[in-house]
Amino acid sequence: MTERNIRLTISYDGTRYHGWQRQRNADTVERQITDALQELTGWEVQIRGSSRTDAGVHALHQVANVHLDSPIPTARIAQALNHRLPDDITILEAVEVPMEFDAVTSAVRKRYRYTIFTGPARPVMQIRFCWHYPGRLDAVAMDAAARVLVGTHDFKSFASAADRRQSSVRTISLCTVVESQPDMIQIDVEADGFLYNMVRNIVGTLVEIGRGRWPREKMGEILAACDRTAAGPLAPACGLCLMKIEYEPETRPGRDTI
Amino acid sequence: MTERNIRLTISYDGTRYHGWQRQRNADTVERQITDALQELTGWEVQIRGSSRTDAGVHALHQVANVHLDSPIPTARIAQALNHRLPDDITILEAVEVPMEFDAVTSAVRKRYRYTIFTGPARPVMQIRFCWHYPGRLDAVAMDAAARVLVGTHDFKSFASAADRRQSSVRTISLCTVVESQPDMIQIDVEADGFLYNMVRNIVGTLVEIGRGRWPREKMGEILAACDRTAAGPLAPACGLCLMKIEYEPETRPGRDTI
Repeated sequence: MTERNIRLTISYDGTRYHGWQRQRNADTVERQITDALQELTGWEVQIRGSSRTDAGVHALHQVANVHLDSPIPTARIAQALNHRLPDDITILEAVEVPMEFDAVTSAVRKRYRYTIFTGPARPVMQIRFCWHYPGRLDAVAMDAAARVLVGTHDFKSFASAADRRQSSVRTISLCTVVESQPDMIQIDVEADGFLYNMVRNIVGTLVEIGRGRWPREKMGEILAACDRTAAGPLAPACGLCLMKIEYEPETRPGRDTI
Repeated sequence: MTERNIRLTISYDGTRYHGWQRQRNADTVERQITDALQELTGWEVQIRGSSRTDAGVHALHQVANVHLDSPIPTARIAQALNHRLPDDITILEAVEVPMEFDAVTSAVRKRYRYTIFTGPARPVMQIRFCWHYPGRLDAVAMDAAARVLVGTHDFKSFASAADRRQSSVRTISLCTVVESQPDMIQIDVEADGFLYNMVRNIVGTLVEIGRGRWPREKMGEILAACDRTAAGPLAPACGLCLMKIEYEPETRPGRDTI
């Protein structure tokens, strides 16, 4: 039996988890999947998740990989894991990939979506997946400010915990704000990587602009300040969802290993 | 202070409740709202909910009424209740209506929607509000069978617990099946009233037709049998949602009392 590298694509409702990453004495998404894999294979396994989403943050397409030394056919892994996982975590796909594929280091771009509901009453069917902010937000002003962030910049102003040893320069390839339906605002941010709490700090800042506390022109100053205190408050976790992770074509399944 | 009759429009995610109706030793939607009203007014109150939705069934627009003898302005009731209610119950509106308005007896039509997700993987963001039925369902055959139910008929075949003292004749004004998006089937049923478990028994029967176990023509025989054992199994509660309740115009707020 040879070891295989399996790439998992995972959806989860993060409401009741202490985030992705395994922790002592806390229920996390990684722990649930690791436990299901160990039950399935009988071996202790370690999975590598591309994004360490925070407590309460959701994912439609998280990606992880795991090296498996088990006779279970690859085509059966997703279903077998789903039987062992709670309803709020789903394996969408399990495929064999080249051994050198690493969900963390092979990622080239990630996209997050943040959803804000601005109507007066709590939307009970969406409440787990949005920030309920009852009031008017100017989505046009927010969108104009969001576009200032596109490009390669030092995003230190939007990092909750700056790591001095590491660069806080990232490249945002997309940052848009749209009112996707009445009272529902969607903020999409795509980048080659994200600093700690970066999307939620960007959203908190955009909301200050949307509600008219700050003019849209202030976004440039905030970015240039390279100072967390210049930006707006942290938006709640529940509105954030990891939408997709992109990889280089050569690490996709079905290609020859380079 | 004169007594007012207040009509409440209510949304709820029924997942964690033992249905609408107040029960001893069980958390219900009615109990939550009654408790919030009593905390707000200081009085013991009794609310009348139009539909006694079952455990796990949801509502986008449930209607209830309550007689209040309290100084709180009508315009403040919804917000004051929402502050006291859990996130999965919301008062969308509270308006004063004529004293003779009764949410139960004044209703002339109700509409329910049942949602089925047919894709292979659990849809984590919709899982609380749908029946996950992985497999192919023929929505066109189901829709043809559904239309047989439109009209005034004895629906005894679709009543889980037939009450011999009461008529099981009802008038269905709308019954449609559409694939609203890929892998998502919506069944809408509107009637002047519903027997116990009627929508869920209709859905269970339509699914037997959709998966090809029964031909679409069988629906007429099942209806004519007036026998619960002729129909399909009961569909799960989580897919069902009360969408709206219609009332006669003269009982709407803003009209003179007749």
